[in-house]
Amino acid sequence: MARKKSADLERTKQDLLEVGLSLFEQKGFNATGIQEIATLTGIPKGSFYNYFSSKEDFGVAVIRYYTDINMERWSNSLDTATEKEDSYKALRMAFLAITEEYRCAKIKKGCLLGNLAAEISEASEECRLALQQSVNEYKTILAEHLLVGQQMGKVRSDLPAQCLADLVWDCWQGSLLRMKIEKSVEPVNNNLELLFHHMLLPPA
Amino acid sequence: MARKKSADLERTKQDLLEVGLSLFEQKGFNATGIQEIATLTGIPKGSFYNYFSSKEDFGVAVIRYYTDINMERWSNSLDTATEKEDSYKALRMAFLAITEEYRCAKIKKGCLLGNLAAEISEASEECRLALQQSVNEYKTILAEHLLVGQQMGKVRSDLPAQCLADLVWDCWQGSLLRMKIEKSVEPVNNNLELLFHHMLLPPA
Repeated sequence: MARKKSADLERTKQDLLEVGLSLFEQKGFNATGIQEIATLTGIPKGSFYNYFSSKEDFGVAVIRYYTDINMERWSNSLDTATEKEDSYKALRMAFLAITEEYRCAKIKKGCLLGNLAAEISEASEECRLALQQSVNEYKTILAEHLLVGQQMGKVRSDLPAQCLADLVWDCWQGSLLRMKIEKSVEPVNNNLELLFHHMLLPPA
Repeated sequence: MARKKSADLERTKQDLLEVGLSLFEQKGFNATGIQEIATLTGIPKGSFYNYFSSKEDFGVAVIRYYTDINMERWSNSLDTATEKEDSYKALRMAFLAITEEYRCAKIKKGCLLGNLAAEISEASEECRLALQQSVNEYKTILAEHLLVGQQMGKVRSDLPAQCLADLVWDCWQGSLLRMKIEKSVEPVNNNLELLFHHMLLPPA
């Protein structure tokens, strides 16, 4: 009985995170209310606080939830591509795969990490730290693949792989902002082309 | 008498824009209320609508106001630097000057255009179009300077200046997001170094 109750609680918590993620992606943090999250999850507003102590605490959990889901998808996508191609091409293919998803989506949500960085870094120290951790995890994987690319002679090695990873990440995030205001993935595709076919290559 | 009234109206409108800009930079669009804007400007909430038909209309005006102020400052900074240095160095110096302002500021507000792109592109079509226009204006100036750099042999010319300008803009915006989550201008400085001292240069 206790086990069933615990499973129910876990299920509701998961539902809250999914609803919260969807709303944060569509409308952002501040435009999303706890009442709305609770209603869409099918629980009374007061019960929300059985799961999360505050909206900020919830924000941190959603950032973690989003990161875990997408990190796993991205890693899988990279692993699949790495079976067929070298590490550098795999990286490019993994980025192109996400871009293709954005192209097909009517609403250009972009990346939750970038969107929340813009919106709530100043307002919530806890969320800022959660964002920092998530971004660092992504950048670590990026740097690892770029380093392998350097070792294989596919990537310029006059600059540290970590610096290149930072630049690629920032370019990606910036182009997602431009995707949102242009309602087109062209900025994202153009930057990937420039980076992976020109800027990151070793001198001819 | 009518002229004084008109001047008063214009003054209040300007005050509203300044207050709105400051609040949007600190807290974003959705966390800022019309009541708060009116109170800080010293007018009743109802009077707000004598100046702007809606919060969205006000958002568009603040985007324009921010762009005009910063475009003028940036152009002046570029012109001053161009008197001393070539067009390419001047561009870098103008970016470094803004970065230095960010470094000195306790609150890392970043760029209003990027922040609002993340927050309200989906929610407000009018604001999205205003953001698009502002970003295009910046990118045009960027491309002009990069083109001169290409003509002088200071910038790689295997890629169109407009593509390079897009990449620089996106990198800049991405690094400002990271500045916000790391509470440091290091990401911005590092990217400027990578771009201006490596990526944008012609092959050695």
